[in-house]
Amino acid sequence: MGVYRDLGRDFDEWFDWIVREAEIYDYGRYPVKGMGVWLPYGFKIRKYVIELMRDLLDSTGHEEILLPILIPDNILAKESEHVRGFEDQVYWVTHGGLTPLDVKLALRPTSETPLSYLESLWIKSYKQLPKKYYQVVSIFRYETAATRAMIRVREVTTFKEAHTLHSTYEDSERQVAEAVEVYSTFFRELGIPFVISKRPEWDKFPGAIYTIAFDTLMPDGKTLQIGTVHNLGRSFTIAFNVWIHMPDGSMDFGWQTSYGISERVIASLISVHGDETGLRLPFKYAPVQVVIVPIPAGTEEVRKKVIELCGRVAEVLRAGGLRSVIDDREDMTPGDKFYYWERRGVPIRIEIGPKELQEESVTIVRRDTRSRSLVRISELVEEVKKVGREYDEAIKSEALRGFASHVIKASSIEEAEKAVSSGNIVELPWCGRVSCATELEVRVGGKALGTPLKVDESVVMGLKCPLCGNEARTLMRYSRRY
Amino acid sequence: MGVYRDLGRDFDEWFDWIVREAEIYDYGRYPVKGMGVWLPYGFKIRKYVIELMRDLLDSTGHEEILLPILIPDNILAKESEHVRGFEDQVYWVTHGGLTPLDVKLALRPTSETPLSYLESLWIKSYKQLPKKYYQVVSIFRYETAATRAMIRVREVTTFKEAHTLHSTYEDSERQVAEAVEVYSTFFRELGIPFVISKRPEWDKFPGAIYTIAFDTLMPDGKTLQIGTVHNLGRSFTIAFNVWIHMPDGSMDFGWQTSYGISERVIASLISVHGDETGLRLPFKYAPVQVVIVPIPAGTEEVRKKVIELCGRVAEVLRAGGLRSVIDDREDMTPGDKFYYWERRGVPIRIEIGPKELQEESVTIVRRDTRSRSLVRISELVEEVKKVGREYDEAIKSEALRGFASHVIKASSIEEAEKAVSSGNIVELPWCGRVSCATELEVRVGGKALGTPLKVDESVVMGLKCPLCGNEARTLMRYSRRY
Repeated sequence: MGVYRDLGRDFDEWFDWIVREAEIYDYGRYPVKGMGVWLPYGFKIRKYVIELMRDLLDSTGHEEILLPILIPDNILAKESEHVRGFEDQVYWVTHGGLTPLDVKLALRPTSETPLSYLESLWIKSYKQLPKKYYQVVSIFRYETAATRAMIRVREVTTFKEAHTLHSTYEDSERQVAEAVEVYSTFFRELGIPFVISKRPEWDKFPGAIYTIAFDTLMPDGKTLQIGTVHNLGRSFTIAFNVWIHMPDGSMDFGWQTSYGISERVIASLISVHGDETGLRLPFKYAPVQVVIVPIPAGTEEVRKKVIELCGRVAEVLRAGGLRSVIDDREDMTPGDKFYYWERRGVPIRIEIGPKELQEESVTIVRRDTRSRSLVRISELVEEVKKVGREYDEAIKSEALRGFASHVIKASSIEEAEKAVSSGNIVELPWCGRVSCATELEVRVGGKALGTPLKVDESVVMGLKCPLCGNEARTLMRYSRRY
Repeated sequence: MGVYRDLGRDFDEWFDWIVREAEIYDYGRYPVKGMGVWLPYGFKIRKYVIELMRDLLDSTGHEEILLPILIPDNILAKESEHVRGFEDQVYWVTHGGLTPLDVKLALRPTSETPLSYLESLWIKSYKQLPKKYYQVVSIFRYETAATRAMIRVREVTTFKEAHTLHSTYEDSERQVAEAVEVYSTFFRELGIPFVISKRPEWDKFPGAIYTIAFDTLMPDGKTLQIGTVHNLGRSFTIAFNVWIHMPDGSMDFGWQTSYGISERVIASLISVHGDETGLRLPFKYAPVQVVIVPIPAGTEEVRKKVIELCGRVAEVLRAGGLRSVIDDREDMTPGDKFYYWERRGVPIRIEIGPKELQEESVTIVRRDTRSRSLVRISELVEEVKKVGREYDEAIKSEALRGFASHVIKASSIEEAEKAVSSGNIVELPWCGRVSCATELEVRVGGKALGTPLKVDESVVMGLKCPLCGNEARTLMRYSRRY
């Protein structure tokens, strides 16, 4: 199997290694399959990433709320397509203590149903609309497939789900566009490359009119779905009687959208920037932005002064709004410390030894290029911020450029099969018939991701469906997929 | 029944009213008993309060983590005293989809058991200690008693639980002292008055050596437990084989503490500061610190300029780091708006009308005193911050003074019964015998809260247990209790 990015070893192995070694997420040892533990370092990465999402949502008029984790059977079952999509995958609470419950309760798989129920109580008039809610919560799916840290889990601990309500279909469409824009900004800020596809009919969210998905490419050349946006139409507002007083005095059902991301964002953040040595975290989202390593040499007196200078430098950085730690462990060599913090993806290392002491300067080393420079302490904060920005630009553009060269247009099945098997997203002309796309999935050895949101006529003009030979109406994307 | 603070109506009624009217928490309508929904305004109060707690914990070396919500039966049952304390109150997940699970899974009632299990994997040496973890999560108790928004619920959505591990008992005792200090700072910062009591033996946390609790007094004169700190000793480290390499080369079990707070903090924040009109939120924790209300008068031209000035003022406040909103609704009178925002506890109102326009000034009104002052826009940010501080001082010292006068020493049962029934915390001399305390609970009509942490000998010298007449060894507190 072809790979997209070389990490010096098998990606699965690399991923498990770095998740464990950088102490991000303890997986496979908690005594419930598919459930893991966020460790302090991983929790902080998660926190900064969630903060970015909250800022983007708050600044676009979304309001954060928090719903109960349990959904009664009869509420979950109210929208029939939706419940069919989830009923085999729901964890059921059946007892309180030793008492059987009257109504069994589901651990939420997602919150369209309880929120629609609540909206039928909360929302009465078009004047209250649009309404944009979100929450950051755990959701649960009894996955029967093999599980994998952060990527396929039974407790998704970091589900950011947004739910909106509108008085017209047009407004719900505007909301879908806003959601796509918010997610695009979010992933771009993190340097996570993506394609946006309208998922095929047979792969949309249960209950939705259509689903738009964000996919990135993992180093093994498989795509990972990292975000989805659904236009729900009126499936849930009709099922839950979400009646709205309209401007013309009539009553009608509202229109809804929903969109979500999960800790797969963290999995992809790790994977698209990491290298053989370990993590490379974006400067703004790194729990530790700068590690300060004293280089022990010279007399006891000199060593003492070096440690003092480390403390002073940490204080200067703190005052400059930067997160740093001093690694003054005595049972480790500087080399081991360098490797320890590189593995954890710390963007900048500062080395301080006798030479630096003498020159009232420190040596700055960048995580990606290992390039070194001597910087005066008076200029340190500005320089660290500048190097941080340059580092961010470098790792992001590396990820984006690499990705762009792996989204490939093909015109024949053979070409497509070869591109998919060597770890690419491939775009094939498509006639629009479901039977052709599903047959092509088998033939090219990949799953259909869906169609690009915008395909200019000129792009498909004259192209034929490689299976039936009919005129292509659009493109369909295929890839191996998580 | 006596009351502690007069809110112009029955406290239960006032509480339900303000929780609903200020749109804090939707309770009683979600179709699972004992579970409610945090609404946007309430969610923000909750967010600022949690941030304060996180700051206090992070700055004292606590590390945030996140554990799965489900605990397997056999893990929960490992510490026998603990499981006996919880087994009647646990929600059980028994099915994944239609498949019965091999091991039934509990919705966590608290996390001592899974964390101890993990510590047996994570912690090997005294060099890693002390270790201080915390998480902010939902916990679940199948309460059979009557439920009440935020105060007694089946999903506690805002449980901050800290768990620490130490190599010696002495260090665990130091940790208990730190936890008591952290919680004291936290409640003082929010202006929530409290007494700290060592809970009686029969009321300690299942598995703990002892439990220290923080209680506040609600306006109806009943105490509410708002925080607990437990010294767990080695109950869980022995049950879960948390072996530690000690400095002398031996292996031994570690020592633990745990401590928690919940959304009862929000319930008490609301209740200790609120008045007849509604909430009075501390300035630093108010979602809206300043509301700007345009006073419509004069010509169309003047009205337009007033609205413009409102916008300018909001911008000035924002630049000064203050959270404000402009209430420019056209279908409400200024008076209705005043009341609307007073109910929501906004500390400062700014009124802008033709008079203010002419003088390049605005009128500031304080929520508690309703005192008014005219402030030049150039001095606005400083003045708002100053008034905010004065307002905070005023509502906090009002709460603290009121509380102090309701913690009463009594020497006879009659006196104690009277004080408890009129809404006080009463302290009675206690001989130390369980039978006397439990009999006194019945006689004074209150529950035993426990003993003060420090009782100077001089305070109890010469005092007798009012029941048996034996010499008092300490004081026991009683009150009606939530």
